[in-house]
Amino acid sequence: MTDKKSNAMWGGRFAAGPDAIMEAINASIGYDKRLAFQDITGSRAHAAMLATQGIITDSDAEVIREGLLTVLSEIESGKFEFSTALEDIHMNVEARLKEIVGEPAGRLHTARSRNDQVATDFKLWTRDQMDAAIQGLEALIGALLDQAEAGADWVMPGFTHLQTAQPVTWGHHMMAYVEMLGRDVSRFKDARARMNENPLGSAALAGTGFPIDRHMTAEALGFDRPTANSLDAVADRDFALEFLSCASITAMHLSRFAEELVIWSSAQFRFVTLSDRFSTGSSIMPQKKNPDAAELIRAKVGRIMGAMVALFTVMKGLPLAYSKDMQEDKEQVFDAADNLMLALAAMTGMVSDMTANVDSLRAAAASGFSTATDLADWLVREAGLPFRDAHHVTGALVALAESKGCDLPDLSLDEMKAAHSAITDDVFTVLTVENSVASRTSYGGTAPVQVRAQIARWKEALK
Amino acid sequence: MTDKKSNAMWGGRFAAGPDAIMEAINASIGYDKRLAFQDITGSRAHAAMLATQGIITDSDAEVIREGLLTVLSEIESGKFEFSTALEDIHMNVEARLKEIVGEPAGRLHTARSRNDQVATDFKLWTRDQMDAAIQGLEALIGALLDQAEAGADWVMPGFTHLQTAQPVTWGHHMMAYVEMLGRDVSRFKDARARMNENPLGSAALAGTGFPIDRHMTAEALGFDRPTANSLDAVADRDFALEFLSCASITAMHLSRFAEELVIWSSAQFRFVTLSDRFSTGSSIMPQKKNPDAAELIRAKVGRIMGAMVALFTVMKGLPLAYSKDMQEDKEQVFDAADNLMLALAAMTGMVSDMTANVDSLRAAAASGFSTATDLADWLVREAGLPFRDAHHVTGALVALAESKGCDLPDLSLDEMKAAHSAITDDVFTVLTVENSVASRTSYGGTAPVQVRAQIARWKEALK
Amino acid sequence: MTDKKSNAMWGGRFAAGPDAIMEAINASIGYDKRLAFQDITGSRAHAAMLATQGIITDSDAEVIREGLLTVLSEIESGKFEFSTALEDIHMNVEARLKEIVGEPAGRLHTARSRNDQVATDFKLWTRDQMDAAIQGLEALIGALLDQAEAGADWVMPGFTHLQTAQPVTWGHHMMAYVEMLGRDVSRFKDARARMNENPLGSAALAGTGFPIDRHMTAEALGFDRPTANSLDAVADRDFALEFLSCASITAMHLSRFAEELVIWSSAQFRFVTLSDRFSTGSSIMPQKKNPDAAELIRAKVGRIMGAMVALFTVMKGLPLAYSKDMQEDKEQVFDAADNLMLALAAMTGMVSDMTANVDSLRAAAASGFSTATDLADWLVREAGLPFRDAHHVTGALVALAESKGCDLPDLSLDEMKAAHSAITDDVFTVLTVENSVASRTSYGGTAPVQVRAQIARWKEALK
Amino acid sequence: MTDKKSNAMWGGRFAAGPDAIMEAINASIGYDKRLAFQDITGSRAHAAMLATQGIITDSDAEVIREGLLTVLSEIESGKFEFSTALEDIHMNVEARLKEIVGEPAGRLHTARSRNDQVATDFKLWTRDQMDAAIQGLEALIGALLDQAEAGADWVMPGFTHLQTAQPVTWGHHMMAYVEMLGRDVSRFKDARARMNENPLGSAALAGTGFPIDRHMTAEALGFDRPTANSLDAVADRDFALEFLSCASITAMHLSRFAEELVIWSSAQFRFVTLSDRFSTGSSIMPQKKNPDAAELIRAKVGRIMGAMVALFTVMKGLPLAYSKDMQEDKEQVFDAADNLMLALAAMTGMVSDMTANVDSLRAAAASGFSTATDLADWLVREAGLPFRDAHHVTGALVALAESKGCDLPDLSLDEMKAAHSAITDDVFTVLTVENSVASRTSYGGTAPVQVRAQIARWKEALK
Repeated sequence: MTDKKSNAMWGGRFAAGPDAIMEAINASIGYDKRLAFQDITGSRAHAAMLATQGIITDSDAEVIREGLLTVLSEIESGKFEFSTALEDIHMNVEARLKEIVGEPAGRLHTARSRNDQVATDFKLWTRDQMDAAIQGLEALIGALLDQAEAGADWVMPGFTHLQTAQPVTWGHHMMAYVEMLGRDVSRFKDARARMNENPLGSAALAGTGFPIDRHMTAEALGFDRPTANSLDAVADRDFALEFLSCASITAMHLSRFAEELVIWSSAQFRFVTLSDRFSTGSSIMPQKKNPDAAELIRAKVGRIMGAMVALFTVMKGLPLAYSKDMQEDKEQVFDAADNLMLALAAMTGMVSDMTANVDSLRAAAASGFSTATDLADWLVREAGLPFRDAHHVTGALVALAESKGCDLPDLSLDEMKAAHSAITDDVFTVLTVENSVASRTSYGGTAPVQVRAQIARWKEALK
Repeated sequence: MTDKKSNAMWGGRFAAGPDAIMEAINASIGYDKRLAFQDITGSRAHAAMLATQGIITDSDAEVIREGLLTVLSEIESGKFEFSTALEDIHMNVEARLKEIVGEPAGRLHTARSRNDQVATDFKLWTRDQMDAAIQGLEALIGALLDQAEAGADWVMPGFTHLQTAQPVTWGHHMMAYVEMLGRDVSRFKDARARMNENPLGSAALAGTGFPIDRHMTAEALGFDRPTANSLDAVADRDFALEFLSCASITAMHLSRFAEELVIWSSAQFRFVTLSDRFSTGSSIMPQKKNPDAAELIRAKVGRIMGAMVALFTVMKGLPLAYSKDMQEDKEQVFDAADNLMLALAAMTGMVSDMTANVDSLRAAAASGFSTATDLADWLVREAGLPFRDAHHVTGALVALAESKGCDLPDLSLDEMKAAHSAITDDVFTVLTVENSVASRTSYGGTAPVQVRAQIARWKEALK
Repeated sequence: MTDKKSNAMWGGRFAAGPDAIMEAINASIGYDKRLAFQDITGSRAHAAMLATQGIITDSDAEVIREGLLTVLSEIESGKFEFSTALEDIHMNVEARLKEIVGEPAGRLHTARSRNDQVATDFKLWTRDQMDAAIQGLEALIGALLDQAEAGADWVMPGFTHLQTAQPVTWGHHMMAYVEMLGRDVSRFKDARARMNENPLGSAALAGTGFPIDRHMTAEALGFDRPTANSLDAVADRDFALEFLSCASITAMHLSRFAEELVIWSSAQFRFVTLSDRFSTGSSIMPQKKNPDAAELIRAKVGRIMGAMVALFTVMKGLPLAYSKDMQEDKEQVFDAADNLMLALAAMTGMVSDMTANVDSLRAAAASGFSTATDLADWLVREAGLPFRDAHHVTGALVALAESKGCDLPDLSLDEMKAAHSAITDDVFTVLTVENSVASRTSYGGTAPVQVRAQIARWKEALK
Repeated sequence: MTDKKSNAMWGGRFAAGPDAIMEAINASIGYDKRLAFQDITGSRAHAAMLATQGIITDSDAEVIREGLLTVLSEIESGKFEFSTALEDIHMNVEARLKEIVGEPAGRLHTARSRNDQVATDFKLWTRDQMDAAIQGLEALIGALLDQAEAGADWVMPGFTHLQTAQPVTWGHHMMAYVEMLGRDVSRFKDARARMNENPLGSAALAGTGFPIDRHMTAEALGFDRPTANSLDAVADRDFALEFLSCASITAMHLSRFAEELVIWSSAQFRFVTLSDRFSTGSSIMPQKKNPDAAELIRAKVGRIMGAMVALFTVMKGLPLAYSKDMQEDKEQVFDAADNLMLALAAMTGMVSDMTANVDSLRAAAASGFSTATDLADWLVREAGLPFRDAHHVTGALVALAESKGCDLPDLSLDEMKAAHSAITDDVFTVLTVENSVASRTSYGGTAPVQVRAQIARWKEALK
């Protein structure tokens, strides 16, 4: 914490310096120092452009650009002393630049403002996080593809309402998440493309009369083009909201899988065994092996959605162009991004490590009349019943089996025939779970052949 | 409310019928009847495909398809009697179809389930809302372009922190919203493309063994392709969440403009006059003309974001595939869509009707030392000062003017020179608001020439 | 929908009537007609007070009060024709009153405004819902107490992380929810007491010069006192937000229990059997018995929290006193209240109907080394080991049992002694689940004797 | 960061140590070290109780209690080295205690678990924040009372829809916020009373067989009583949610006042001048004086409500008792509490420092036909018109004045009489803003005499 009395950057306008409360609520350096790399990158591009356009001299630009590298290396090595009195990363960097290179530092801020500078820095940072999210998603997809490939024909119960519905394959279940995460990748890519416009050069809000070249800085910073309206450019936080929306949907997907892993790890299900690496013990119950990582991942959707709600609420009803309220944007995105990446990494690790208990899965799939639909479908297909009638016949047979304490394949042909005379011995071929899953070859269905086709499609897509 | 005792569709499985509470919490027909058109469209496509694939006969398909049209016309004419005991739109339609066409009705549900049926219906409905949102946004963009064109060179204050910062043009301010809404259009288009996959034929969750052709129904229903995983297809509500996210961002944009209109309509600002059509009076204060429409639009972001939070929370931690919790999806999306369309229409009307008070805008722009930045920029450009030094000189001159109770152009050249000797008479050319805005010709800047170029670009894009 | 051109209440101020869009966004009669009873009750109290204070004549008051009863009976009998052009319930009632009683109707609105009128109506309605929530909570508490009493000594697994931790009693588990819901009752009671101040007589925002008696209307309407600041009275929606907060916490509690019921109903757990009344079947899988009511209750927290988020967002940053944004308050509270009452009723029904599968619970409790803590505690208590050492010894014995595929009571005394020489035959008395739960007699512990004491305390409290 | 390979507390259960990802997602020491004081206080109370009950020896208890003080002083002086491998504050403290006092440290964890320990620590911390919030609210109320007293009779416009409605007094406006914040105090007090039950001694979830005295630790820690159900005690986070709800309502109130301050500080309003201490300048516009503190306060409701949404979402659907998801509770509450206290302090400073521009307020109050209601009320009171008729006459006179470009008091008596013959010269006495506010003496009204009475009531209440 530096001297609170000096406040060099506002000049003589204020009689009194901000006191401790104001400093605490106003200063952002405590968190926006994470933008140091982006800030310096943006300033270097700006300086180069100013020189190219003849607004500053080449030698000034050179001095500034070298000085900025020095500042960066000081920050990266931990030697930089951040000052709260200088409020934010922009002023901290510029003040240090002035100490290093002297008078030319004062020319860097020509034809820009903190408003477009912060928009640029924060966009660059958020863009990196979109790339990181895509990378994290693809790693998790990879782990799921491995599981799916290993168990393309392992049979497990397909649930609705957490009740056994029909048998499915392990590979099919894994691939359901691949589809979700694949949409997430696509969503982040769309968001990235939409936000990839350069706000630098919008100045405070009105643009500038200096003959700047915003296309040049756009290219230098990897933006596709400059923003087309300077008021919008400094007032816009859509990119942050869209990042948070995308992250929330991904986190929701992870919460669903995490819930399943928690349930599957219970003594009652025993569908999977999680590795020790992603479980923990208890301080009082030595026998416990808790799916902590899954539970923590499940919780992350709360935190990330909370960040989204926070920023939406902040932005609600703000007049143009910049209002200080918008300073509340960064911590929300920082926290959400950190937690999203962590959740993706932890889930990837858990998925890679986990072991399916193939026997438990198969046993569970075979209980609970899970092939009742296959029986009904057989009645439609082979006996020509309308579906609704087939459904009624099947219901009667299920009720009979339930009352006898047996499963459908255990009923005799006579019992079957008593329910509907058209039933033949052939019906028993559809009552095994293996036959059930093998039969469901409709596009996107659970049959191993279908699952393997989808795995192949995804592997090709990710190449 | 129909007979609660009969519950035809579950057959004999349950001894007791659901009582009034269960019916109240369980039945969705009160709201999902809005899906009638989509439900019937989907069923007609399904029947045609079943016949093409030889799963039902052509004549059955024909009977079903005609019968469904009859049901649709009954619903559209208001003659249809919805039954709560039949729970939802799907069962209501099918039960009525059976009354009309008899036995073939029972063949319609072959190779599908309510799970894929509801996913298909709801996707079709939501897709229409995405199209409606795009249309509503483009209408509002059109109204804004008209305002921008009319006032491309009207001068008004550009604000930061609701403090006069620099003069901008009315056209520039309008175009800031065009940019925001343009991103909204792009976001809805991306969401529409991503969700445009056909879930029909996923059946309950595992696909089916019937030789269906999901590409055929996809094409019939305007989908780009079938979904690739049947578990995912029935468990997915990403499209609803993404609609709500996009709608929330749009609503947030509208709330910002609405806030400005409320402030601009105040007696203290008088920047705009809203039309009587979009204002109301007061029951006790006859002189009032309240910006009610603007306030209501401002509020809508709360409602729409609330719907988004609701659905995210519902989806959190749900295991695959379908859980009944997901029935809570529709009312949220219905309400958000209705309110989004209403807010867009009301804002379009208000923008079309409103009158800018050009004199008030100009007067406000010219006060408050709004060309201080122009002075600082002049010092950099013409007198060669580093920006930070120019800033200090300008600050001193502002303080002088403030103490004299005058504005910057009212200071004498001598007073100027006393602050910095390099100042010449030429400085006064940059101190008028008209010159200020005209000078800011950087790409995306507020200069009328820039604004007109952006208007032209948008008109071309919307053709 | 009535004639849109007439707009009697604003008089001649507006040249143009609001068009269809404005009417659609502005009119609240579609939902605020639910306030009819409260509106008429408030107006009757107001009229009586005006007469008592000599502001209107006794005969006018009598005519108004009788006329209002006529309006009420028209509304209750469904004969009343609501008009959208008259915007809201207040104007609908007053316009009809004028038709019925003529000129005196015009005197009713003396010394009040729609602003205090709507605040009064909405408070009265919300207060009733707080009472209804308390009643619904107490009914559910009653159902839980019955379950707890029946199963005060049934043994079941206590879970942490959905892993078996220690045996607990069914009664103890039920009583955990009684505690939660008991806090909910207390929270609603506090909220009710805080909001129970009368806004009527605050007029538009400044109070009035008429010699009204706000204490008199307060008493007539069951308020504890008048509000103390008229600006605050018309601008305040804290009572609605607090209702929504309380409702969200209750709904969260219900979601936890609902989740347990869904899991407990699975084929893998089989801890409970839900009644047919609160379950449903599947259209394609005849054997399914789905815990739909539980799933729908689990979802309600999303909807209710969404309503809360919506209203918070609406209220954010609204200047005093009344802004039209606040019209968005009612639908959120209506929907949340309806769904809360429904969820409470459905949960009460489900809890009353459900059957614990005592054998399954006992068997699950006895597996998974659930008395490991009891062993560790025995080592501390009887053998004098520090807890951390006892923990290590227990861990070693659990590992041994796990490797042998047996449970703790199945180890021999020699094996026990090998882990720690101080172990004696007495240790086996603590390794049964019955002894385990019976031993935990600390205040609030799971021992049946403790559970019965808590049941008795609650029964006394609810008398 | 300490050695990741050792993981002393889980003993030999796990073959592999958690890797870096797991450590990052699992360890809470990075933030829960803020609970150090509460953790040590709770442990000291627990040790004293264990000795009193004869569960450990007096000398062990003494050694433990002294050792814990040593740990506390190490933490407070910054000398303590926190270890991520030890996960959380509880294990960090206990591990260090063992280094200091040796074997007796192992006896401290008798008859408790991390589950009840963390619940106790977090409750103690949250309880302190409730007290701090109450204190912060009372300080702000004090600042508002000072403003209200100074300006009990300063006239300003009362707004609805940001349109001038009726004149009110500055004191009345300040007192509106006193009422809101007064409710906030009451809400925090209720929440504090409700949560003030001791979870310590609930152990992992089932209570304990050790003869502990939970009333003794309750008294030592300032709790009113022990919690009555051990499962609930470790699974409950209601107190955190209720803190966040209360904080959100307070933050919403602050956002409304902050919005007013931003608007009132604009060049167009000039109602108040904020002190330099709570404003800032601009890096490019030297003349700006921005209401940054007000804007940041306005934004805080987003952040705090976001935290609430996060925790609600985390808690949704968690089965009993403890799940690791709940570890996400603390950062949300920490962040919300920090920001609430900061916002309260900043608002208190701003209110204390701000200067009302009495002349601007008065001038604004007198424009815009703000006494139209007084005219209508005069017609009712003195000329016996029904309110609705009086309203129409007033509307006509306002329209006349508007067309003439004058205000109501500027109309001649003849013009008045032309609108309604019963109007006399006396009417002009109610058309001044001073008379208007003085007349509104209804309870809670804006008349200075009423405002002063309310100030006196509040001063008495806060004594």
